[in-house]
Amino acid sequence: MEVIKLYNNKLVLIDQTKLPNDMSKIECKTYKQVADAIVNMKVRGAPAIGIAAAYGILLAALEYKDKGLEEFIANLFQAASYLKATRPTAVNLSWAVDRLMELVDQNRNCPVEKIIRMIQDETENIVKENKDTDISIAQHGAKLLKEKENILTHCNAGALATAAYGTAIGVIRYAFEQGKDIKVFVDETRPLLQGARLTAWELVQYGIPATLITDNMAGYFMSKGLVTSIIVGADRIASNGDTANKIGTYSLAVLAKEHSIPFYIAAPFSSFDFSIETGDEIIIEERKSQEVTQVENCIIAPEGISVANPAFDVTPNRLITALITEHGPIYPPFDKNLEKFKLINKNR
Amino acid sequence: MEVIKLYNNKLVLIDQTKLPNDMSKIECKTYKQVADAIVNMKVRGAPAIGIAAAYGILLAALEYKDKGLEEFIANLFQAASYLKATRPTAVNLSWAVDRLMELVDQNRNCPVEKIIRMIQDETENIVKENKDTDISIAQHGAKLLKEKENILTHCNAGALATAAYGTAIGVIRYAFEQGKDIKVFVDETRPLLQGARLTAWELVQYGIPATLITDNMAGYFMSKGLVTSIIVGADRIASNGDTANKIGTYSLAVLAKEHSIPFYIAAPFSSFDFSIETGDEIIIEERKSQEVTQVENCIIAPEGISVANPAFDVTPNRLITALITEHGPIYPPFDKNLEKFKLINKNR
Repeated sequence: MEVIKLYNNKLVLIDQTKLPNDMSKIECKTYKQVADAIVNMKVRGAPAIGIAAAYGILLAALEYKDKGLEEFIANLFQAASYLKATRPTAVNLSWAVDRLMELVDQNRNCPVEKIIRMIQDETENIVKENKDTDISIAQHGAKLLKEKENILTHCNAGALATAAYGTAIGVIRYAFEQGKDIKVFVDETRPLLQGARLTAWELVQYGIPATLITDNMAGYFMSKGLVTSIIVGADRIASNGDTANKIGTYSLAVLAKEHSIPFYIAAPFSSFDFSIETGDEIIIEERKSQEVTQVENCIIAPEGISVANPAFDVTPNRLITALITEHGPIYPPFDKNLEKFKLINKNR
Repeated sequence: MEVIKLYNNKLVLIDQTKLPNDMSKIECKTYKQVADAIVNMKVRGAPAIGIAAAYGILLAALEYKDKGLEEFIANLFQAASYLKATRPTAVNLSWAVDRLMELVDQNRNCPVEKIIRMIQDETENIVKENKDTDISIAQHGAKLLKEKENILTHCNAGALATAAYGTAIGVIRYAFEQGKDIKVFVDETRPLLQGARLTAWELVQYGIPATLITDNMAGYFMSKGLVTSIIVGADRIASNGDTANKIGTYSLAVLAKEHSIPFYIAAPFSSFDFSIETGDEIIIEERKSQEVTQVENCIIAPEGISVANPAFDVTPNRLITALITEHGPIYPPFDKNLEKFKLINKNR
């Protein structure tokens, strides 16, 4: 599945807003089109929007290649700000853009062609690392699973979210491919239904037994003893392990604690934000009310009703059993156990 | 708002599946049409389906009035079974039908006309009691609320659910009408969206400030300290206080405990089932998968995915702060404090 692919200097994306009914692709020729695709969630998932944004920088570089060096560099920084402003919560986006722009900054006196080649190479590195990372997460995570598991997941942390093997769904896929007896409960994940539309679709493709439920059913199945593990992705993880992820994740974590069910976050280090101490510092994106009051063209709420639409919530570290990363699982106390990774991250 | 009304020997119902976009009514001429309306949730809400079913018995009596007495009685019992089989969880339905059929049974040697008149009178009693009950619940419940409250509610326990003033929403309305500073969070209540479609619509009509949220946002707003009370209705309450209500209620109760938020059930004694000791004995209705995979005509899940659709869950008594009834609030220990009502109920 080619979720994000550069082809003839155009970025080709699966339009995830059209799934599962329609597998259509869109082409972005400019970085602004990439930004639009991110804002409108045609591409979504923390690692995937990082990759899309990296390609956005590359498209910007190609757009401005015939300007003089100074203007080229200025335009690139403008494009970087524009791309970073699309969605505030997932840190992978600014992580990827900043990684490229640091390179640009360090080489700002090189010829334009050389800078473009550097951006191209570094974007390819990001894509390649992302693939390796997903596989590592999957391998480490699968080790935590028993021979028989009923795993509940929320939103979509699959191939569509990472443009590779997936994080939370990657762990599930890997364990399933190892021959473990894996069944999945898929939270539909209102308002945008990434569970119903994307995760359910991925799991059907992979042949992994899965049951779709509405978000408010999760507690019921936990109380019946039918959920043995919960694995979700992450949009931003603070230095102390507090984790922002799709709205509803926090409630699942509270329910997991109530039922003594292990609660795992599967995420690459590009989702960690060591510049913040706790989850309190994470900005929660508020999206438009129509996402709640309409499902496609069906209006499901009366005129005149107020709506809240926070897209994420923060799960405090005390509710997390382990963070499954490419360097293996990290256990509490997270602030202490993340300390050494903080240094690795700073030095790379 | 005339939710359920007998008019010219036809039962006229607001078609609640069409709200909030369309305020249309349907007419039931036969008890089977009433049963269909209950199955398809054109009328829903535990007290309201009790009343609709009572009228269903009356329509059956009118349908069979020209048969001989014996056949009339036999047909009535058949209609009673048919109506009781429509939905298994809410006890008000069988409570209302049984109440009428006990009367029929006790008077099975009276003339048909007299039995019909008795059914008519008793149905009117049920309707009248239901109205009084709602007001009592509202008055008792409002006393529990502080001058300023942010109340979260789930599903619809309003006028549409009781064909009177409402239970959970009745408490909210009453407190609001008393001049208290009341704001409401409305869980949309997937899959059938009774919160978004019905509760939001009612609250807009009453002018009560309300914010619609998806079910998975409730925990987020609790964690922000923005919810001060939770009030919901009930479909069946066991002798120990365990309460079946719309799927998702249990999760809210767990989240309420986590955040030390009072969790109230507002329900009439017709929702109590003293024939069962605990909630374990309550049958949970499983509804069709299309309710999850489709929103009106929009298909939101891929072909081939399995679906679970339990319509209710059971909240254990330990998570309930008080049961708000027409006889006042009942506090834990519920098994002990419900004991005297068990006797009243038996003797009425």
